[in-house]
Amino acid sequence: MEYRKTVEKWDVFEVTLSGASEGNPFTERTVRGTFRGGQECVQADGFYDGAGVYKVRFMPSFEGEYTFQIDGTYGGGKQEGSFLVTAASGENHGPVRVANTYHFSYEDGTPYYPIGTTCYVWDLQSDERIAETLEMLKESAFNKIRFCVFPKHYDYNLNEPRSYPYEGTPMDSSVLTKENFNEYTFRSEGNHFDYTRFNPDHFRHLEWCIGQLRDLGIEADIIMMHPYDRWGFCTMTQEQDDLYWNYAVARFAAYRNVWWSLANEYDIFPTKTTKDWERYAAILGEKDPYRHLRSIHNCIHFYDYNRPWVTHCSIQRQDIYKSAELVNEWRERYRKPVVLDEIAYEGDIQHGWGNITGEEMTRRFWEAVCRGGYPGHGETFLNPEGMLWWSHGGKLHGESWKRFALLAQILKEAGTGGFAPYERCSWDEVCAVPETEPFSVVKSFYLYYYSFMRPSFRDYYFDDETEFEVKVIDTWEMTIEDRGIHKGKIHVELPGKQYMAVQIRKAH
Amino acid sequence: MEYRKTVEKWDVFEVTLSGASEGNPFTERTVRGTFRGGQECVQADGFYDGAGVYKVRFMPSFEGEYTFQIDGTYGGGKQEGSFLVTAASGENHGPVRVANTYHFSYEDGTPYYPIGTTCYVWDLQSDERIAETLEMLKESAFNKIRFCVFPKHYDYNLNEPRSYPYEGTPMDSSVLTKENFNEYTFRSEGNHFDYTRFNPDHFRHLEWCIGQLRDLGIEADIIMMHPYDRWGFCTMTQEQDDLYWNYAVARFAAYRNVWWSLANEYDIFPTKTTKDWERYAAILGEKDPYRHLRSIHNCIHFYDYNRPWVTHCSIQRQDIYKSAELVNEWRERYRKPVVLDEIAYEGDIQHGWGNITGEEMTRRFWEAVCRGGYPGHGETFLNPEGMLWWSHGGKLHGESWKRFALLAQILKEAGTGGFAPYERCSWDEVCAVPETEPFSVVKSFYLYYYSFMRPSFRDYYFDDETEFEVKVIDTWEMTIEDRGIHKGKIHVELPGKQYMAVQIRKAH
Repeated sequence: MEYRKTVEKWDVFEVTLSGASEGNPFTERTVRGTFRGGQECVQADGFYDGAGVYKVRFMPSFEGEYTFQIDGTYGGGKQEGSFLVTAASGENHGPVRVANTYHFSYEDGTPYYPIGTTCYVWDLQSDERIAETLEMLKESAFNKIRFCVFPKHYDYNLNEPRSYPYEGTPMDSSVLTKENFNEYTFRSEGNHFDYTRFNPDHFRHLEWCIGQLRDLGIEADIIMMHPYDRWGFCTMTQEQDDLYWNYAVARFAAYRNVWWSLANEYDIFPTKTTKDWERYAAILGEKDPYRHLRSIHNCIHFYDYNRPWVTHCSIQRQDIYKSAELVNEWRERYRKPVVLDEIAYEGDIQHGWGNITGEEMTRRFWEAVCRGGYPGHGETFLNPEGMLWWSHGGKLHGESWKRFALLAQILKEAGTGGFAPYERCSWDEVCAVPETEPFSVVKSFYLYYYSFMRPSFRDYYFDDETEFEVKVIDTWEMTIEDRGIHKGKIHVELPGKQYMAVQIRKAH
Repeated sequence: MEYRKTVEKWDVFEVTLSGASEGNPFTERTVRGTFRGGQECVQADGFYDGAGVYKVRFMPSFEGEYTFQIDGTYGGGKQEGSFLVTAASGENHGPVRVANTYHFSYEDGTPYYPIGTTCYVWDLQSDERIAETLEMLKESAFNKIRFCVFPKHYDYNLNEPRSYPYEGTPMDSSVLTKENFNEYTFRSEGNHFDYTRFNPDHFRHLEWCIGQLRDLGIEADIIMMHPYDRWGFCTMTQEQDDLYWNYAVARFAAYRNVWWSLANEYDIFPTKTTKDWERYAAILGEKDPYRHLRSIHNCIHFYDYNRPWVTHCSIQRQDIYKSAELVNEWRERYRKPVVLDEIAYEGDIQHGWGNITGEEMTRRFWEAVCRGGYPGHGETFLNPEGMLWWSHGGKLHGESWKRFALLAQILKEAGTGGFAPYERCSWDEVCAVPETEPFSVVKSFYLYYYSFMRPSFRDYYFDDETEFEVKVIDTWEMTIEDRGIHKGKIHVELPGKQYMAVQIRKAH
């Protein structure tokens, strides 16, 4: 049998339908698909895409023959069809899942070690800037990026976005200055948006961005709501919010690389309460058939990451001096993967959250990884164009990002289900061991990290018999020195520099 | 009237006496002086100095005519005499006192801002090494040094001291290696010391050292007991301990620059309890007529600095990552001066407490000072001679010490009773203001410090009228840039480098 349509497992299968365009199709019409294969039956809401067009999307999780039925009040009646799901190919490993309490893997079992960055509204910049961002991402080791659906209003972010999520016109932004912009935050006066009519162009563009990221092997950690707003998007009514959540989920959920970040800095919205966040989470629970990863990011106070819908911690550090160093504590407290989505940004702007050195950022990355967590990057260098990676994407100017490939490589080569902090190391070192190895005195792998300390040598002892391969890693200079095979008492000379690591693994 | 003897206020007046030498004069004989002037009457124990010689020392606190009477069982009968106390001269400002809850001053009212260092047994090295140490101290900004009466047994400290505090012979130290030395700690086997017979030479030498420090304007923070011992000095009986404390107080107390540190790392003695420490403190309370400053230094757990006999906190930091940053907290908890006697050492040895960079040490100094505390330095660089400043003194090899003169100068120029942390600064800066200025919106002086952060500029606003003189300080490069007089909104451009400070003070 030959199918008119085929789709790869974990890709988007999309049904396009003609329907009614009069009235407000966004609020007055429904469309839904039921997708049946040998191993799953999925119901997915579709959405109005403007100009009388409706779409229903589906991400198949199994190979083989599928059928689908469409129904709803959208005006095109019941429809049905069939398609063939072929094997995943290339770098398509499926969506990311929590694999073993603290770590992730793709659905096909391939480990996934997040190396994240943040570019809040890279997606809402010019085509040229977006192309530049994608080019930089391609050169980098990043495999997760946090960004927003809504435009951003904040210092260095007073421009208008390329498009709005709703029909209408914004307030006159020529009144804004670096000094007065804060007065407009959380206000909607002067805007003329219809919060019940989406702008499908805006969302189609976002989907293109999500698709581009997917093709680069990058997870799209979509920030659904955020408080840096002057357009009224963060002060919508409960009904309007729910309409938005349903619409976004119907559009985005079929993309395998989507993660849901309910909010950036949820705790500084004057307009939302825990009840609201829990309601959005419930919408996801009901409407995302694929159960993409879900979390919520704080300004000051962590959300209760113990809530069952939260799949992982999405942490903004709470202390100027300690961030990655607290990963052990957070792992124990929440028993979920610890993702440090904000540990300050490398840069030189006036704000303390955006002016650490490349060395310190790299140090925080190693600290986090060696303690069994996952760090996130961002860049905020002043430049004449006012284009800061942290928000606009564009070009990377810093030093830390160049050094993450080495870390990613070591994570990958360790060949385990992620790192756990080794409890038996000295008070003045952090050491990663394989998370999933049974408790035993001798592990197959130890990664000692010395942070800002500068030991001239270290001595190690595990047992008398095991042969270990020893490597000295300069995490800043990105050199790896092979120090040969050792057993018994292992003495390792070090250069008395900061940012050194020692990798000790069982010789084969 | 002409006096046979004169002494400067706060100097040592010493009476030398001939007496019995048979038996054990240290335990069997007493000698005591009563010193009377117009404004004080002080009773002070004397001590046996060997070879039939007894001494009684006194530090006068007022100018004018004094008389003294000696009595006791020392064998020389009652003696008396008179002397004249002249005005203090030169850099003699008297002993250091707690001036205003958090800060110190000399007894004559001159502010004293501790800039400390640690050289545990510099005093027990060769004459050449001691001369070198004194030379380095003279070049430096240090005005307090921590050191021990007893020799030190520890990594890098396996040699014998120049002398022992007791008569007798030590264990054979040729058996010691870098690997086994720990097994000998806290043991007294193999030693043949008489813990009831002091070695006056040892103490005379210490007094010479204290005198040298005094003449350099350096406070001698004498560590009376410590656990790094193989000679039995840390495992003496209660009676032997008390004999030691009484003897040391009788010898040292008349030196105006003496501080009593009851112990280094009191909490790792297996042989002492709180009851012991409190008993030693009681001996000081009873026998030190001058009430020199008193504290006790921890390894892991702080001693209860709220005890009334504790004049100031003597803190070893409890966290690898946060030390000076916690000064605010400790000030609030203890309401006493916060002296950070150990915040890791600049160096490159294998131990995590001894291998931070000069930059990080300097940063901790500024953090501590701007938060209203007092930092302490130490150096542990590996070198062929195995001479590490932290223990042996000798030469300084690091970078931080060169930068403390600038900090001391700024403390001095601020012309206040010390710094308090400013509560109204941003979350990402620390700022020092004068401790003793009454609460008001506008202070006479602000010292903002940006630590490892790199703001490219900062904006300040205090009021519309006050004229401020603005200076930008590069604490690492040791440059001070005058940025002129400003009022109202003050915009300060910064170089986007670490370790910058901004000083803003009322223009005259």
